[in-house]
Amino acid sequence: MSSEAIVIVGRKKPWNYVTACITVFNSGNKTLIIRGRGENISRAVDVANLLRRNIAGMQIIEVRILEESEEGTSRIIPVIEIVVENPHLKEAKQ
Amino acid sequence: MSSEAIVIVGRKKPWNYVTACITVFNSGNKTLIIRGRGENISRAVDVANLLRRNIAGMQIIEVRILEESEEGTSRIIPVIEIVVENPHLKEAKQ
Repeated sequence: MSSEAIVIVGRKKPWNYVTACITVFNSGNKTLIIRGRGENISRAVDVANLLRRNIAGMQIIEVRILEESEEGTSRIIPVIEIVVENPHLKEAKQ
Repeated sequence: MSSEAIVIVGRKKPWNYVTACITVFNSGNKTLIIRGRGENISRAVDVANLLRRNIAGMQIIEVRILEESEEGTSRIIPVIEIVVENPHLKEAKQ
């Protein structure tokens, strides 16, 4: 779990983040957290589905819903964290 | 589980759906699925967080990520289902 990486989904097209996830997996991480805030939540779900649909064996192992307060304001923003796992890779140990 | 109800989150303000959820709970359902598609996913997460923050004991017991194909097109749309539970209520039996 120490090597768990996070890909933060912003306003770019979903495929940009899919590519980022693949890069993370190729660097030896077995699990990965896809994270999106506010209006980027839908895109984070899209990224997770694209990964699952296009990479054999890719699994969504957990979906968490959180909230965060925005710095300097009292606004509370919803956050999603989607934990995905690529079982073909072994967790890198350091 | 037979009495599990679904609240579908659309384009209205989150509080509209929070009210709908409370109505469902008050009618005797212990669990409820909050469902959102595409760009409404973020709002569905917001609704779940508002419920959890404002109603004592409310819990998110599961978050599922699915996809659906749009009727008449080949587009695939991400879907979220958030299962919430109000432990103060007993499941209605019929």
